[in-house]
Amino acid sequence: MSLLVVGSVALDTVETPFGKTSEALGGSSVYISVAASYFVQPVRLVGVVGGDFPKEHIEFLESRKIDLDGLQIIENGKTFRWGGKYHYDLNVRDTLFTHLNVFEKFNPIIPDRYKNSSYICLGNIDPVLQLQVLNQINKPRLVVGDTMNYWIETKPKELAETMKHMDVLIVNDSEARLLTNEPNLIKAAKKIISMGPHSVIVKKGEHGALLVTDDTIFSAPAYPLENIFDPTGAGDSFAGGFIGWLARTEDLSPNNLKRAVIYGSTLASFCVEKFSIENLRDLNYLKIHDRFLSFMELSHFDDKK
Amino acid sequence: MSLLVVGSVALDTVETPFGKTSEALGGSSVYISVAASYFVQPVRLVGVVGGDFPKEHIEFLESRKIDLDGLQIIENGKTFRWGGKYHYDLNVRDTLFTHLNVFEKFNPIIPDRYKNSSYICLGNIDPVLQLQVLNQINKPRLVVGDTMNYWIETKPKELAETMKHMDVLIVNDSEARLLTNEPNLIKAAKKIISMGPHSVIVKKGEHGALLVTDDTIFSAPAYPLENIFDPTGAGDSFAGGFIGWLARTEDLSPNNLKRAVIYGSTLASFCVEKFSIENLRDLNYLKIHDRFLSFMELSHFDDKK
Repeated sequence: MSLLVVGSVALDTVETPFGKTSEALGGSSVYISVAASYFVQPVRLVGVVGGDFPKEHIEFLESRKIDLDGLQIIENGKTFRWGGKYHYDLNVRDTLFTHLNVFEKFNPIIPDRYKNSSYICLGNIDPVLQLQVLNQINKPRLVVGDTMNYWIETKPKELAETMKHMDVLIVNDSEARLLTNEPNLIKAAKKIISMGPHSVIVKKGEHGALLVTDDTIFSAPAYPLENIFDPTGAGDSFAGGFIGWLARTEDLSPNNLKRAVIYGSTLASFCVEKFSIENLRDLNYLKIHDRFLSFMELSHFDDKK
Repeated sequence: MSLLVVGSVALDTVETPFGKTSEALGGSSVYISVAASYFVQPVRLVGVVGGDFPKEHIEFLESRKIDLDGLQIIENGKTFRWGGKYHYDLNVRDTLFTHLNVFEKFNPIIPDRYKNSSYICLGNIDPVLQLQVLNQINKPRLVVGDTMNYWIETKPKELAETMKHMDVLIVNDSEARLLTNEPNLIKAAKKIISMGPHSVIVKKGEHGALLVTDDTIFSAPAYPLENIFDPTGAGDSFAGGFIGWLARTEDLSPNNLKRAVIYGSTLASFCVEKFSIENLRDLNYLKIHDRFLSFMELSHFDDKK
């Protein structure tokens, strides 16, 4: 059940119609690890920060029993910073700035004692680095990977190579369409499966998510939130909840993959209710399970006898 | 369980990337009645056509045990004709022409023996006419109504008045947002409930549908079709399946409303698999129930013991 997470660690400055946050803890590996930490502990994190990375963030991650032996600290460098602005339609965001800083030369070196990790979550980084991570792992049981438009457009061949080594690809609907040049999402998902992963999850924001495997299609609803404060990190929280549940239960059956999608959706729904990672700071398993049951209430119906 | 349907009867000329159909049987009251006829018979139809309305269409509707005593035939007039074109993104359509013809002066007169109808489905027509229909009905048990952007924009007051007499409003997501000036769909749905109907169904095309009542939110998935030939009539088929199931079972409990939403989704999914009304011509209850069970398979998950 050992879970390894690789991705960015960032300080995010985010503006939404509901407020603003500055230099908040963020980055894909942070959201994934924190979300997963409600299911398994410790979570092994591989990432990079500069000497300016606030000590309080390290302390918080440690409080979630996240193993930071894989977090490289470049003392004379600066941490990756990202700035974005969301509009009333929270599906649209503008990137205001991207200062890669130490993340620009990120070289994910896996500590020896992480190399036996069974569950691997590859946050959205260069597919070349994703593959480099996998080449350092002995024999993972499950590899879950994320990607984005930028890599689909600039490194299609490298991404295709890396995808051959993924078991589950997590993308959003526009990424699925871009990756396959196929407007129909079901067809797009099946095309992705023919490219390597045995399963694909298509996240559809306010419309929920689809899980497609060789022989299953599962449609997960979105949690009906009336107030979404900040969508930042929703996708990564999804990935963390998803792989966290699988690593906890060590059950890769179709029925358990469905539950994992709901746990992913659950963590994503908590994430967007407050700014940054705030709402993921003090969850507990009971709260999470309660919302899991709400998802059931939301989508289940019976056949009239 | 007597079901009355009021709306347009049309001859549709539709082009999609997959083919073309000319002067095909269409119109909201036709799709609603035919879809509902798989649950209850007879369905009482009120509409208007010209003397040019093909006899074969009359015969088909009669074969579905649709009671046509409320179908006005204006011998020296022409039937309503609509032409539209869908693009690869089937969510976008251009209207090529709208010849209202006899539909322009449609005056929905309810035959005396229809006035005791318990279940009323108001297709997407002028809200003034919708209210005029309701004023002729003795004491309906359930009034389901549809509307569209055009009426929301041009007759907001009249629509607001009519909505006070509806139990269930069926709209799509953009209509819900336009009607309430609220981007969040859950908030929009709750605002609609405050305007009169006790329930609202928000159709989201390829993303399924939401049912919102005072105390329930239900998220229905879309059926994962790889090939959608013609979206024309999907919304009306949804309404027909929805009210047809309720009229058949005479059960307005929350659980049965959820089932009705799935039966609506089922009929809509059949509708779009072929052109025009073709795929609704020879369904049967077994086929419909099988797809209902597929919807269950698609959206259900369990809690790990």
